[in-house]
Amino acid sequence: MSQVIQQRAPSWEVERWFNTQQPLTLESLRGKVIVLEAFQMLCPGCVAHGLPQADRVSHAFSPSQVAVVGLHTVFEHHDAMTPTSLQAFLHEYRVGFPVGVDQPDGRGGLPRTMRAYHMQGTPTLILIDGQGRLRHHHFGRIGDLELGAQIAELVLEEKAVSVGAAPSTSIPAAATRGCVGDACAPEVTP
Amino acid sequence: MSQVIQQRAPSWEVERWFNTQQPLTLESLRGKVIVLEAFQMLCPGCVAHGLPQADRVSHAFSPSQVAVVGLHTVFEHHDAMTPTSLQAFLHEYRVGFPVGVDQPDGRGGLPRTMRAYHMQGTPTLILIDGQGRLRHHHFGRIGDLELGAQIAELVLEEKAVSVGAAPSTSIPAAATRGCVGDACAPEVTP
Amino acid sequence: MSQVIQQRAPSWEVERWFNTQQPLTLESLRGKVIVLEAFQMLCPGCVAHGLPQADRVSHAFSPSQVAVVGLHTVFEHHDAMTPTSLQAFLHEYRVGFPVGVDQPDGRGGLPRTMRAYHMQGTPTLILIDGQGRLRHHHFGRIGDLELGAQIAELVLEEKAVSVGAAPSTSIPAAATRGCVGDACAPEVTP
Amino acid sequence: MSQVIQQRAPSWEVERWFNTQQPLTLESLRGKVIVLEAFQMLCPGCVAHGLPQADRVSHAFSPSQVAVVGLHTVFEHHDAMTPTSLQAFLHEYRVGFPVGVDQPDGRGGLPRTMRAYHMQGTPTLILIDGQGRLRHHHFGRIGDLELGAQIAELVLEEKAVSVGAAPSTSIPAAATRGCVGDACAPEVTP
Repeated sequence: MSQVIQQRAPSWEVERWFNTQQPLTLESLRGKVIVLEAFQMLCPGCVAHGLPQADRVSHAFSPSQVAVVGLHTVFEHHDAMTPTSLQAFLHEYRVGFPVGVDQPDGRGGLPRTMRAYHMQGTPTLILIDGQGRLRHHHFGRIGDLELGAQIAELVLEEKAVSVGAAPSTSIPAAATRGCVGDACAPEVTP
Repeated sequence: MSQVIQQRAPSWEVERWFNTQQPLTLESLRGKVIVLEAFQMLCPGCVAHGLPQADRVSHAFSPSQVAVVGLHTVFEHHDAMTPTSLQAFLHEYRVGFPVGVDQPDGRGGLPRTMRAYHMQGTPTLILIDGQGRLRHHHFGRIGDLELGAQIAELVLEEKAVSVGAAPSTSIPAAATRGCVGDACAPEVTP
Repeated sequence: MSQVIQQRAPSWEVERWFNTQQPLTLESLRGKVIVLEAFQMLCPGCVAHGLPQADRVSHAFSPSQVAVVGLHTVFEHHDAMTPTSLQAFLHEYRVGFPVGVDQPDGRGGLPRTMRAYHMQGTPTLILIDGQGRLRHHHFGRIGDLELGAQIAELVLEEKAVSVGAAPSTSIPAAATRGCVGDACAPEVTP
Repeated sequence: MSQVIQQRAPSWEVERWFNTQQPLTLESLRGKVIVLEAFQMLCPGCVAHGLPQADRVSHAFSPSQVAVVGLHTVFEHHDAMTPTSLQAFLHEYRVGFPVGVDQPDGRGGLPRTMRAYHMQGTPTLILIDGQGRLRHHHFGRIGDLELGAQIAELVLEEKAVSVGAAPSTSIPAAATRGCVGDACAPEVTP
């Protein structure tokens, strides 16, 4: 199931991070397209499809443009999927991108970030644009072609925005919005 | 192997078309991104990967924006891969998009379109933008994520071009260039 | 669909053989378990599953005990699947085991061997024991575990037969009952 | 890596069983071929190949002839793969056959059964015949064809043994030559 949306992405409430020196925030990733992969280590669909896809994304796109972030959203079997177990899981499955442990609600229900994003289960893949807006929300399996296209669209949009935001450029901001891909320069006609 | 290029796509020299009422030309598809899948019916990599991928593309993108076209570029076993055999192949493998038979050179060598495009073998996947320019040339296998991104980029570029070219719009052409995706309208600030 | 049967396997009527110096017959293969893979080169299920499985069988079992034989049973698209096309197909798909072209009936219907074996379509995998008897008939897809077990059973049966047939053996009945596989000798306790 | 062996299978030292009402022992399974699948829940090869294969075996063969038994042989990440985590894993992955937790050695090394069987890692698949003898030991991946054949061989051997052990049989030697499997009786020609 897939949804297209346009609203500010809620902050992440994470109790512990793996594979990153310092905690990640939406603000610290501003300017990059974020691919947020919400998973549980004992969710077969996450292990078979979601995480391998997130890994492919991390290799197919430039880390300067696309940030892949995992979120361990444990909503069942809490005793079985502790951070200790997750750490071993990430090691054995060679998950190399940053992964945050979604903050438990303290009552054994949905963890906080999962609830804030209205996720229905795992795997859920969420795309956040360079301006911190929620743009796509996929619950379950999504094809690589469709995902690649959606990420590319957000990357190009961000490029247009960032060039337009450059303070000292003499190119009219409006014009640079149309600039897509690396070949955009020749098309500028001020 | 993948290459990025920017030049006018050579015309197609096709001796017979399948799955289309009338012959296709680059001109007749102007304004659409073209995914050209060059294959041979007895090429295992084409059957296992190239053609299924082309079929996925034809379903993942709107036919009003992306045209998937097969090209049967027979460069070996000419007696075994005749148009008669191809017709049965397309039927049995349920290939639904248009397929042209590349014009043989008459001497048992590379067929004419294959030669004009400097293809090295099959499968070769070529992306042509809405203005008829060669943009990507992949020989062998390419991942769906990367391909989806490349197609999306060309689709968005074409949208920007076509909106910009619309004669009666009151939106400044320059502004609309930045318009990406269906959600572009709110961003216009004339 | 799978059937277990016990009757003499009909002779093969083959108009041309590939991958073998001389024509194969049931008689010439007596003493070996025969895995007969009936296919059509333009049958997607044969290309994706049947032939790769037959190839795995040819590598998993000793050729001195198991003979894998392909049979090209063309019952449609006769003009597209000629022996010339088949030859190119076998070359490109690296089919290494012997393949016979089932004799056409001359009227565009089922070829003769296919009819004699009451095959319902392709792929059909037939197991013939070392004594030339039909033992299993599978139309469609069969799992490797089940197939491996059925082949092994016929191989062991044939071993028992050949040991039992040895003229000078003095092994008592009770002993030979348990005798299966290469390790049977030590178990004899007259 | 695969080994063929012939010695008495060591007893299982298990601290806890799942998916079975009462503890399993080699003795309680005497007369059945045992497929012992040693795995760790955080071993990618076990999850992707070993356990699905064991599940296929449990469906391809009769439970009256073949017993599939899992053994959780934790030799690393002990804190991450506790029985609590395993229980959730078995539930989420729908593992239906009995699984025993190999007894830890108390020093964080190889668990006891794993050591007794000289296993080199996970997944390890071990075949034990109906008489409790070790017959095959596979470390890593093994194909279904080969595995199906090995299981069938042990099943047939066990059938022969049980028939051979019948005290009052008067079936002559000639009859037993071809006699394997359930279909041998009609062939008797005294």
